[in-house]
Amino acid sequence: MSLFRKIAIILSINFSLLLYSQTDTEKSDFINDIYNEALSNGNSYEWLDYLSNEIGGRLSGSINAERAVNWGKEELTLISDSVWLQEVMVPKWVRGAPEYAHIESSPGNTIFVPIAALGGSISTPSIGISANVIEVKSFNELDILGEEKIKGKIVFYNRPMNPTTINTFQAYGESVSQRTQGAKFASKYGAVGVIVRSMTTTSDDYPHTGSMYYDDIPLNKRIPAAAISTNGADLLSSMLSLNKDIKFFFRQNSKNFPDQLSHNVIAEIKGNKYPNEIMVVGGHLDSWDLGDGSHDDGAGIVQSMEVIRILKSLGYTPNRTIRVVLFMNEENGLGGGNKYAEISKLKNENHFFALESDAGGFTPRGFSFDTSKEIFSSIKPWVKYFKKYSLDDFFIGGSGADIGPLKDGRIILAGLRPDTQRYFDYHHAASDTFDKVNRRELELGAAAMTALVYLMDNYKQ
Amino acid sequence: MSLFRKIAIILSINFSLLLYSQTDTEKSDFINDIYNEALSNGNSYEWLDYLSNEIGGRLSGSINAERAVNWGKEELTLISDSVWLQEVMVPKWVRGAPEYAHIESSPGNTIFVPIAALGGSISTPSIGISANVIEVKSFNELDILGEEKIKGKIVFYNRPMNPTTINTFQAYGESVSQRTQGAKFASKYGAVGVIVRSMTTTSDDYPHTGSMYYDDIPLNKRIPAAAISTNGADLLSSMLSLNKDIKFFFRQNSKNFPDQLSHNVIAEIKGNKYPNEIMVVGGHLDSWDLGDGSHDDGAGIVQSMEVIRILKSLGYTPNRTIRVVLFMNEENGLGGGNKYAEISKLKNENHFFALESDAGGFTPRGFSFDTSKEIFSSIKPWVKYFKKYSLDDFFIGGSGADIGPLKDGRIILAGLRPDTQRYFDYHHAASDTFDKVNRRELELGAAAMTALVYLMDNYKQ
Repeated sequence: MSLFRKIAIILSINFSLLLYSQTDTEKSDFINDIYNEALSNGNSYEWLDYLSNEIGGRLSGSINAERAVNWGKEELTLISDSVWLQEVMVPKWVRGAPEYAHIESSPGNTIFVPIAALGGSISTPSIGISANVIEVKSFNELDILGEEKIKGKIVFYNRPMNPTTINTFQAYGESVSQRTQGAKFASKYGAVGVIVRSMTTTSDDYPHTGSMYYDDIPLNKRIPAAAISTNGADLLSSMLSLNKDIKFFFRQNSKNFPDQLSHNVIAEIKGNKYPNEIMVVGGHLDSWDLGDGSHDDGAGIVQSMEVIRILKSLGYTPNRTIRVVLFMNEENGLGGGNKYAEISKLKNENHFFALESDAGGFTPRGFSFDTSKEIFSSIKPWVKYFKKYSLDDFFIGGSGADIGPLKDGRIILAGLRPDTQRYFDYHHAASDTFDKVNRRELELGAAAMTALVYLMDNYKQ
Repeated sequence: MSLFRKIAIILSINFSLLLYSQTDTEKSDFINDIYNEALSNGNSYEWLDYLSNEIGGRLSGSINAERAVNWGKEELTLISDSVWLQEVMVPKWVRGAPEYAHIESSPGNTIFVPIAALGGSISTPSIGISANVIEVKSFNELDILGEEKIKGKIVFYNRPMNPTTINTFQAYGESVSQRTQGAKFASKYGAVGVIVRSMTTTSDDYPHTGSMYYDDIPLNKRIPAAAISTNGADLLSSMLSLNKDIKFFFRQNSKNFPDQLSHNVIAEIKGNKYPNEIMVVGGHLDSWDLGDGSHDDGAGIVQSMEVIRILKSLGYTPNRTIRVVLFMNEENGLGGGNKYAEISKLKNENHFFALESDAGGFTPRGFSFDTSKEIFSSIKPWVKYFKKYSLDDFFIGGSGADIGPLKDGRIILAGLRPDTQRYFDYHHAASDTFDKVNRRELELGAAAMTALVYLMDNYKQ
C-alpha cells in the first residue's frame, strides 16, 4: 500500500469516526429535546383525560367507539398532514343488564359474588342458571373428569395467575386460555355454564372480563361464560372444599349482534426523503366496556398521537413517512389490525417499521423487537441513548397485536415495554380508569416511543 | 514448575470454579425462594394496611407515633429473637387548627388557596397575616431585591421542581432549600411570612409539607412559613403577574413544644457464625401528619420487617446478626438515626452493613451503595442475581438518612432505589395514603432487600 493510500485511509477512518461521533451527540441531544418536550409541554395526559372521562369505555360496535373515532380524527387533524378513516367491520357484542350471581350454600342461603359476562358470551336464560359446580385448574383435569362428572354442572376454572412470575404478562399468558377457551372445552362435556377466575394477581372484588371464543361449537351447544372476581373465586373454592353440593346461580343477558361498520383512524406526516417508506406508531382505540380503558389502551393511543405532536413541535421533518394508527377492535377480533395490513398489502405499501404501545401507561422499561437477529444486533446499541432515561431493556420478543398482521419478513416490529407490575390489577376491569394513570409515567412512555421512531427514521440510509 | 504443581494448580482452579459455580446456583436458588415467599405469602402489605389505616400519620412526639412504636414492638416480637426500645428525645411540633389562606385580588374579593404549615414553623398571629407578596425563584433573587423590596411582605418561593429531570429525587434536591431555608433567609430582609411552592411535579390541590429550620434566627425574628399547593402557586403567580399589589392572607396556629421522649424499635436475629457483626435493615417509623405516611416511610418499615420474616419462614440461619431498626424522627430532626449511631459507638458495636428503604414502595430498580470503590466493585457483580427480577441498577451513591450517622469508613451502607416517578406526587401530602401503594411493587422491594441482606450475610467470609 502506498503511503498516500495509508494516509487517506487513516484520514477517512478518523473523519468517519468524527462524523459518527457528531451524529451520536446530535442524536442524544435531539432525544433530550424529545424528553423535555414530553415532560414539560406534554399533551398525552390531557388527551387521555378526554378519552377516558368524556368518552369512556368504548367497545367495538358501541356508540362510544364511534365517538372515539371522531375524536381521534379531529385531534389528529390538528397535528398531521392528512387524516383518514379506514373502514373495518367489527363484532358488536353488548353486555346488557348487569350480571348477577350468588353462591347458594344451603337452600335459601345465598352469598352475592361479583361476576361479569365474558366478551362474546351468550346470555343465560332470562331466569338464570342454577347448578352444582365443578372446580378445575386445567383442561387436563376437565378431560379426566369427563362427561359423567361435568354434565349439567357449571365448570369453575380457578387456576390463578402465578404471583411469583415477575413479568405479569407471562403469568397472564399461562392462565388466559381458561377464559378464551374454557367454555368451548366445558361445553363438549355437557357443562351448562362456565365461571372463570379473573385474570389478575390482586385479591379484589372486580370481575375482569375479556374475550372468549366458541370456535366450532354449534350454536345450540354454546354455554354462557362469566368472569368472577378473585375474592369471589376464593370464596367459592373454599365453600366447595367444605361442601361439593353447593349451587351457583348466575344470570346475564349479553348478546351478539351482526357485525358493524367501524373505523381505524390514520394520520400521516409525509417523509421528506423516503415518503414511500412508512413507519407506523399506534395502539388500539377500542376498549372493554367495564372501565374507561385508560391503561388498555387509552395510554397507547395518546402516546402514539404524542409522537407526532412532539416531532412537529420540535420542527422535525421526518425522512420517512410517519403514520399514527388508532386501531379499532383489538379486544374482540383484531378487525382493525387485520384490515390495515390487508389494505396495505393491496396498495403494495412499503412498511419499514411499526411500533405499538399496548401494555399500559406505566414507567417504560424497554422495547421488544420482532425482527431478524442481524437487524436487532444493529438496533440494540441504541440502548445507550435511553439509559439516562432509566430505560435499558431491548430484547427480541413480540411487538403488538394490532401491528402483528404487518409482519412480512421485512418490516421491523417493536413494542413499548413498561413496568408490568400494576397492569393486571386493572386489566379489563371497572378499575381501569384515568386515576390509575400517572402523568409522568405516561409521558415517559410517549417520549421513549418518539425517540425510537426518531432513531428508526435515521436508520439505514 | 514441576508437572505435579502445574496439575495441582489446574485442579485447584477447576475445583474452586466448581465450588464457585455451585455456590452461585445455590445463591440464585435461595433468592428465588425469597422472591416466591415475598410474592406468595408476603405480609408487608397487611402490615402497611394496619400502620396506615389503623394508626395513620405519626409525626414525632404525637400519640400516633407512640402507637406505632408499640405496634412495631409487638409485631417484631413475633418474628425475632429479641426486641427492645431505644430511648430518643424528639421534637414535638403540632399543626393545630387547619390552616387557611386566600388571595385578595381586590379589597373584599378573595380566592381560597390550599396551604399547610411547614414542619417547625411558628404560628401566624391568631388573626393571621395579610400582606403584599413578592415572588422569587431563588435566594439570589432575594438578595438582589434586598430589604427595601422585601420588608413587610410575604416572600413567595415559586421555583418548581424541574419536570424534565428523570430522577425526581434529584429535582427535589435542587428545589427543597426554598422550603428548608426560605423563612430563614426571607426573615433577614424583614419579610413577615413565607409561602413555598409545594415540592412536587404534579399540578394538584395538595400542599406538601416538610421540615424547615430557623437555625440562628432569634426567636423574635422568626416568621411563619407554609407550603402552597402547586395549583395555588400557579394561580398566585399569574395573579401577581397581572397586579403586583394583590394581598395574600394566611393563618396557621402551629406550635413547638419541648422535646419529648420517644423510641427507636430494634429487633434482632442473632448471627450463628459472627454474632458480633451487625447488619441493620430499616426505615423510619415517623411520618408527616397530613397523610398516613404509606410511602414515606411506612413502605420502608414493613419491607424491613419483611426481611426477617422471609428469612425466618425459609428457615435461614444468618451468619451475622440481623437487626431491624424502625427509626424514629427522620422527618424533623433525625433524632432516631443519630441516637442509634451514638449508642452503637458507645457500646463499641461492629456494624458490617446497613440498608435503608426510604424512597417509597414502588417497583425496585436498584440499590445505591455508600462504600469504597474496591468493595463496590466486588458487590456490583451481584447484579446478575437480580436481573431476572427486573432490578439491575447498582451504583455508588447515598444510602438513607437514618443509617447515615453509622458511617465510619468501614460499614457498607446501601439504599433501596425504587422507580422515582410517582414518589413526589404523594410526598408529605394528604395524598400519601395506603391506596397509593401497589402490593406487588411493595413486595418486590421487600424481596430485593432480603436478597441483598442474604448476599451480604454470605460476603467476605
